[in-house]
Amino acid sequence: MGHSDLTTLLLALTTLLVAARICGEIARRLGQAEVLGEILAGVLIGPTILGRFAPEVQRMLFPAPGTPAATTLAGIEQLAVGLFLFVAGMEVSLAAVRREGGRALAVSLGGLLVPFGLGLGVAMAAPELVGAIEGRSWGFALFFAVAMSISALPVIARTLIDLGIYRSGIGAVVIPSAIIMDLVGWLAFAVVLSVVDRASAGPTSVAQTVMLTLGFCAIMLTVGRWLIDRVLPWVQAYLSWPGGVLGFAFALALGCAAFTEWIGLHAIFGAFVAGVALGDSPHLRPRTRLVLEDFVRSFFAPLFFAGIGLKADLIGNFAPLVVASVLTIACAGKLIGCGLAGLLSGLDWRSAGAVAMALNARGAMEIVLASIAMRFGVIGQTTFVALVVTALVTSLIAGPAIKRLLRLRPVRGLAAWLTPRTFVRRLASTDRSAAIRELVAAATPSGTDAELVVQAVLARETASGTGLGRGLAIPHARLPGLAAPLIALGVSEDGIAFEAIDGQPVRIIVLLLTPGEADDEHLGLMAQIARELADPAVQRQVIAAKSYTQLIALLRAGTLAEE
Amino acid sequence: MGHSDLTTLLLALTTLLVAARICGEIARRLGQAEVLGEILAGVLIGPTILGRFAPEVQRMLFPAPGTPAATTLAGIEQLAVGLFLFVAGMEVSLAAVRREGGRALAVSLGGLLVPFGLGLGVAMAAPELVGAIEGRSWGFALFFAVAMSISALPVIARTLIDLGIYRSGIGAVVIPSAIIMDLVGWLAFAVVLSVVDRASAGPTSVAQTVMLTLGFCAIMLTVGRWLIDRVLPWVQAYLSWPGGVLGFAFALALGCAAFTEWIGLHAIFGAFVAGVALGDSPHLRPRTRLVLEDFVRSFFAPLFFAGIGLKADLIGNFAPLVVASVLTIACAGKLIGCGLAGLLSGLDWRSAGAVAMALNARGAMEIVLASIAMRFGVIGQTTFVALVVTALVTSLIAGPAIKRLLRLRPVRGLAAWLTPRTFVRRLASTDRSAAIRELVAAATPSGTDAELVVQAVLARETASGTGLGRGLAIPHARLPGLAAPLIALGVSEDGIAFEAIDGQPVRIIVLLLTPGEADDEHLGLMAQIARELADPAVQRQVIAAKSYTQLIALLRAGTLAEE
Repeated sequence: MGHSDLTTLLLALTTLLVAARICGEIARRLGQAEVLGEILAGVLIGPTILGRFAPEVQRMLFPAPGTPAATTLAGIEQLAVGLFLFVAGMEVSLAAVRREGGRALAVSLGGLLVPFGLGLGVAMAAPELVGAIEGRSWGFALFFAVAMSISALPVIARTLIDLGIYRSGIGAVVIPSAIIMDLVGWLAFAVVLSVVDRASAGPTSVAQTVMLTLGFCAIMLTVGRWLIDRVLPWVQAYLSWPGGVLGFAFALALGCAAFTEWIGLHAIFGAFVAGVALGDSPHLRPRTRLVLEDFVRSFFAPLFFAGIGLKADLIGNFAPLVVASVLTIACAGKLIGCGLAGLLSGLDWRSAGAVAMALNARGAMEIVLASIAMRFGVIGQTTFVALVVTALVTSLIAGPAIKRLLRLRPVRGLAAWLTPRTFVRRLASTDRSAAIRELVAAATPSGTDAELVVQAVLARETASGTGLGRGLAIPHARLPGLAAPLIALGVSEDGIAFEAIDGQPVRIIVLLLTPGEADDEHLGLMAQIARELADPAVQRQVIAAKSYTQLIALLRAGTLAEE
Repeated sequence: MGHSDLTTLLLALTTLLVAARICGEIARRLGQAEVLGEILAGVLIGPTILGRFAPEVQRMLFPAPGTPAATTLAGIEQLAVGLFLFVAGMEVSLAAVRREGGRALAVSLGGLLVPFGLGLGVAMAAPELVGAIEGRSWGFALFFAVAMSISALPVIARTLIDLGIYRSGIGAVVIPSAIIMDLVGWLAFAVVLSVVDRASAGPTSVAQTVMLTLGFCAIMLTVGRWLIDRVLPWVQAYLSWPGGVLGFAFALALGCAAFTEWIGLHAIFGAFVAGVALGDSPHLRPRTRLVLEDFVRSFFAPLFFAGIGLKADLIGNFAPLVVASVLTIACAGKLIGCGLAGLLSGLDWRSAGAVAMALNARGAMEIVLASIAMRFGVIGQTTFVALVVTALVTSLIAGPAIKRLLRLRPVRGLAAWLTPRTFVRRLASTDRSAAIRELVAAATPSGTDAELVVQAVLARETASGTGLGRGLAIPHARLPGLAAPLIALGVSEDGIAFEAIDGQPVRIIVLLLTPGEADDEHLGLMAQIARELADPAVQRQVIAAKSYTQLIALLRAGTLAEE
């Protein structure tokens, strides 16, 4: 690899990462999935947009096909999708499935069979409706049926976590169902792919492929899992830390990927099953997970997803009718299948609906699957684009739909409530009532009768002090007529006497004003603020924060207890 | 990239990672640097050994030259060395240099100029002595002079940390000196390389190259550093966490690498300087550093170092005379240069010697530098092998030599003292003296008069209880005539009354027996054990540990507070 090849490779990687990050962040700001932004980044810097309007810039940024740099980039993308599936597999918890047998099994069966049947039926009866390239074909129809039945555990888990219902009754049904669907879906995909791709995979029959797939899966999830669980403590005890266990994880992922690719299944299937087997071990330490997930999600995943947009012309191949029918089949299959199974197994209609909407989310999994099917010529670009849109739309509507069905309120951290105006970095006041007055002025919009608010807060304060000890106070009041809670945070370097329960002067004061009627919200916010600022280390850093920006960065990291 | 290419690529990556890990761990066990094992792994599975005795296995494991898999592997190795240098750069602390101006400057000047002059002189006067391929040549001589002057901050820092003198007076001189040497060394290398490689780098003169190198370095470490420091809090506050800041770090590393490669300097120089600029920002959070370092060190670094052994025939090109003379020049230059400068700036001879021995360690840096010089044809395999040996030997002797010069004792964690025999997972005893008797039996070798030891411990116990509160007790005694400390750890599930300061029953009992005369060691060990087991979470896990293996894994992770 010469000078110019290396330059081009590095430049292409940088461009992909930067574009994916920027578009991912914009997507997140607009309330969309990051992966949508990452794919769009590829569209922007790929042939669709940049290549059309500034072809010479596009040629400068990306290596010409056939050059060593282009080959390396393609190889890195293959590695990236393998590691992405490995990390996705690590999120699968077999223990959760064992705990929740019956109902999850019913829901996942319904959510697999109905969309599979529907997909297979439509693809055979009216292949042109879903963009088939060669008319009626079993290969296409089987793949399409699998694509309709798959779901995306990582997206589903994150949606439930964001809504605060991961550990609820809904979560107890959804998560194990999603795990079963994921496992069965990838198993089916591995079989379909190697059957369709039989030419290059060697003379294996369908029966052989099914046996190989099931055999590999069964051995890895029993003997393999048992072995990993036994070896892991040994690796952590005797090899260097954390290099030893990380090396073990990589070797496992790449080794299984190489093996499945060798026996004629796709590499990512091996990586996924390896992830399931490793992730299920209770001996896997949080730090190992964290390093693997962070690195793969921020380095390899964006390269892969932006690379998709780079290769496909997503705009030219957008066929409204195909997109609409694929999306309809996908949603109808899952909602009917999971919803009915949920109702039959005793859920009320709101819960059954929420379960079905959650399991309808297909996210990045569908996109990975579609991009591989396209690479092997099973589907054309039209179906590919329709599947990408389906993946994004189903993931997108899951959260809002569940929120509405279950009538949930959003959980927001302190960081979400503060603005540069409501962060008073250095309180000028030296006594309690002056400090409260200063914070009320910062928290309320101009035109408010501040004195009335101050009196309400002070009245509450007189009834019982809000100094919670350890230098933190949360003076608060309920104000009827307020549209949304108002929060201000002030720091006093010298400390203010607040009649705190431990007699210590208070250095962090959070003023909390909530609407009069919202009782739960008020208590919830109080508890959350107290929790977020409980750690003395976080408190010290809040006091030391030099700007609003620093404070927000700290609160977000502190909230997640991530350092 | 077809089926068989992907299979070969994944297989090659797996083989490299597994072999590098195994050999790295063996090297570590033998008290050697892991990088030595990683390079030897490449030798074992490369043409030197495996290729000679089982060529068909070697051909199966690694892609044939010119195939897409081979190109991708070479590209990934380039990426790997860039990211390795980026992470190495992150360890450079410019603030430490600013704090310790004078003496560090003197020592690093001595340690740069003397080896540079010596290397240049010998390479011009007797080029055959150091393995020059084309006789007398300025390109070779300049490179060789730089190779003699470089040092390896990461190795040096780790040696000092292992010896427990990182924050001592010695550390305060060594670390900033190593930083200056690193920066100047890489600067000089960038210039030499692009001058030697002028043909492919385009029509830049020596003066231009020097200007470019200095300019890039100066701009990145002033304006660039300032900008990064301003942007980082913003990235952490407004982009997703930790994806945003990781993406920023990768883009910075690869972008700078692409830029320096483009202007005719090598990519790794840009990555290194980007690492310095980023690592110096106080806003860079520990978690970001941790993810970057862990992943690069356990995935990319082994691929690169094992790849070196894979390409060079380290055994066939081992020329004893060249190795001996290169090693002599390297050591003489650093020891004389740094040692004299240290003495002149007021250090006593032991300290000056320790500083010189520390800065003599060249570690992975020298190997990276030599492998690039070889790739560009500046040096031949003979000099390359001599430089690799020099890198390993100088790193290897640094620790023991400093220990002897400063008469240090090793700092060892609780995990290092315990054996399967001295971990009593479930104490049978239910009272204090019986528990102590049980632990003494576990700790002392057979043939010891256990009762005498028990009496000594109980006497100490009567004088003042050793229950430290929170369920932990450290009964102890000094036993004249003991060769080394003896430690046993017992767990009581039900708790034992120990007259602890908080009146709580004790569940973890550590028995500590030290030689009578070693006063410092005794107190040091006591304090360390108390510290290691202070965290209630660690205590809970110690009590729950099911085996010695689990306990050791836990103590090692807990000691480092890494989870």
